[in-house]
Amino acid sequence: MIYLDTSASYPVLPEVREALIAASDLCYANSAASHLLADRVSQNIESVRSVLADMIGSYSSEVVFTSGATESNNIAFKSLLLADGFPPDKNHIVTTSIEHKCVLSICGYLQRRGFSVTYLKPDSNGIISVEKVEAALQTSTAMVSVMHVNNELGTINPIAEIGELCSRRGVLFHSDAAQSFGKIPVDVDDCNCDLLSISAHKIGGPKGVGAIYIRDLRKLELEPVIHGAGQEEGLRGGTVASPLVVGFGEAAKYFPMHYHEFERTRAKDYLLGQLAEVGIAYRVNGGGDSLPNCVSLTLGETDVGSLLRDNESQICLAQGSACSSREIEASHVLTALGLSRDLAGKTLRISFPLNITLTQLDQLIEAIKKASVSNLDRRYL
Amino acid sequence: MIYLDTSASYPVLPEVREALIAASDLCYANSAASHLLADRVSQNIESVRSVLADMIGSYSSEVVFTSGATESNNIAFKSLLLADGFPPDKNHIVTTSIEHKCVLSICGYLQRRGFSVTYLKPDSNGIISVEKVEAALQTSTAMVSVMHVNNELGTINPIAEIGELCSRRGVLFHSDAAQSFGKIPVDVDDCNCDLLSISAHKIGGPKGVGAIYIRDLRKLELEPVIHGAGQEEGLRGGTVASPLVVGFGEAAKYFPMHYHEFERTRAKDYLLGQLAEVGIAYRVNGGGDSLPNCVSLTLGETDVGSLLRDNESQICLAQGSACSSREIEASHVLTALGLSRDLAGKTLRISFPLNITLTQLDQLIEAIKKASVSNLDRRYL
Ligand SMILES: Cc1ncc(COP(=O)(O)O)c(C=O)c1O
Ligand SMILES: Cc1ncc(COP(=O)(O)O)c(C=O)c1O
Repeated sequence: MIYLDTSASYPVLPEVREALIAASDLCYANSAASHLLADRVSQNIESVRSVLADMIGSYSSEVVFTSGATESNNIAFKSLLLADGFPPDKNHIVTTSIEHKCVLSICGYLQRRGFSVTYLKPDSNGIISVEKVEAALQTSTAMVSVMHVNNELGTINPIAEIGELCSRRGVLFHSDAAQSFGKIPVDVDDCNCDLLSISAHKIGGPKGVGAIYIRDLRKLELEPVIHGAGQEEGLRGGTVASPLVVGFGEAAKYFPMHYHEFERTRAKDYLLGQLAEVGIAYRVNGGGDSLPNCVSLTLGETDVGSLLRDNESQICLAQGSACSSREIEASHVLTALGLSRDLAGKTLRISFPLNITLTQLDQLIEAIKKASVSNLDRRYL
Repeated sequence: MIYLDTSASYPVLPEVREALIAASDLCYANSAASHLLADRVSQNIESVRSVLADMIGSYSSEVVFTSGATESNNIAFKSLLLADGFPPDKNHIVTTSIEHKCVLSICGYLQRRGFSVTYLKPDSNGIISVEKVEAALQTSTAMVSVMHVNNELGTINPIAEIGELCSRRGVLFHSDAAQSFGKIPVDVDDCNCDLLSISAHKIGGPKGVGAIYIRDLRKLELEPVIHGAGQEEGLRGGTVASPLVVGFGEAAKYFPMHYHEFERTRAKDYLLGQLAEVGIAYRVNGGGDSLPNCVSLTLGETDVGSLLRDNESQICLAQGSACSSREIEASHVLTALGLSRDLAGKTLRISFPLNITLTQLDQLIEAIKKASVSNLDRRYL
């Protein structure tokens, strides 16, 4: 089975698997208790916190563990903007129409709570330029949120420039770095981020854990999204899922190496090169800088429906964005790029597993070739 | 090391451990995607959902996975009461002063949002009676929330009666069943619960996953606590942590059997009997019906400080409630029972591990004996 998931969610790395098993045996104590075993668990948690902090160039005290990037994004938007002391005249948000669905859903909620939201459209390459952000700023703008890497296209937004702009204009800057963390450098100072969301399962860590970076966390008056018993500086309630945190730490340590090895296989280039060679019409959605692990591929002359169906048991392929693919609707990212419903339906969203082989790529190419012969021709094959 | 944690959080059961390992290899697909592997993951998730639903006597469609009981409690209070359509004149909540700290924290938040909250005090046994709840109801009461089993005392509240009252009076009833689920029967119809919170790590499942039961979920207009991409009927955003869910399911299946075996060891009775026999002054906080796996023990004539310190490397013991034991403050539960700060400081909160042995209990008793000799006598020992 070739597994080309849609959401760049990687299976747990071997190193993570080992650590998870060990940690679920050792880390069962509640880290908030006051005895020796609890202290050990706390130490484990704190050491992961500082691994993550080092990777993003922050202080440990600015990193809060969450259940994943979705929750982190919720905290990013709600904890400050809905806190009691937040200035009521700062009620405008700038974000983009290609954010992860959870951000769009959070913004919809904030609109119902009286905020106005500008959704920037990307350029034809799928990129959000700093100029567009600048043009959208108002005196009432409280926060700008632009994702680092788009999860469907793999495109990289210029968050250093956007962060620099926000810092200059005194506007909070959040970036959803779920798809970039561990793959390309993410430094909260270099990109002037005030808030940054990351997730473990996007880098071969366990599902169910993520983190949010919040600049000067301890100095802020924040309203938790999940109210609890004082855990995580009072910002995030719930027993800290220590084994998951340990798994996150191992993933953060080992994923970059595995990813680097994957990069050398040049899987995306090979796939596109072969498609071109055999004369298959394709279009890659999103241009400019992009990550090598995913590609959004529109196959205008391919019967994508039968490509999916005929290979169901051998190749896991998906259309649209994973989280919404149960509702059969065109991906909002593709729509934002101007694709018609029809072409969006002919689009594959491919994330390569880290250990993909040439043979597997050839199998995929063969399958695409087969589905690209018109139904008529097929009858005479 | 004898591990007497404070929060009745059990290490993962052997059966759960196996399932977790298998699931983290198999369940890496995003259950929201539309391909075959995702379908398998979905099936796993749905089968756990129906295991849990069966145990609490609900429909599967009424069970939503969360990151734990803290999040479930947040959803229970906020999703309905803060939803747009909720009647503004229903702005009173009845809860108790012995709820888990997260509930108190959520209620504090709702107070700042305009709700008024009545915190019922327990009787001297630590029990919340239906009469007290009835006396607190007002025409503006939106919701009653009373925990099933208290996490410090092990006491069992009469939630069937309270639920019956609420149902009769047309008030929503929520119960935090984190400490009872899997140990004693919890049936949402028998106790007329509209909302019920549970957590996996309290029954030997993984940390980082829980669930909330919401009656007629699909018919309600709820405001999510974590806004996301439509997962879990739109109520709870974030990639479902499928391996954790699978682990939760195994825990739900196997914990009751292990717990039943533990019950037969009569560890609590043995401990108390021995303490009485050797003439150690003690008082058990909370009376009436209570669970055998935990006990809150005030040792008025024991040097509890040195008991903890001297045995630190052999016995994990804790004072107060786990979640707040880093802030050295008297447990709010003990305070509600009328204990002085001093006596609260002389209180051990003990949860027995399921596999505790007589030898370990004797070791604990020995340690208590030692610390109960006055400092003066000690010098001449
Ligand atoms: C860019 C982006 N943000 C947020 C998320 C949500 O992450 P999680 O599943 O950890 O909540 C994802 C993954 O689905 C993502 O790709
Ligand atoms: C009664 C009760 N409610 C809620 C919680 C919180 O559960 P979780 O750690 O799953 O968030 C606990 C455990 O700490 C508890 O004992």
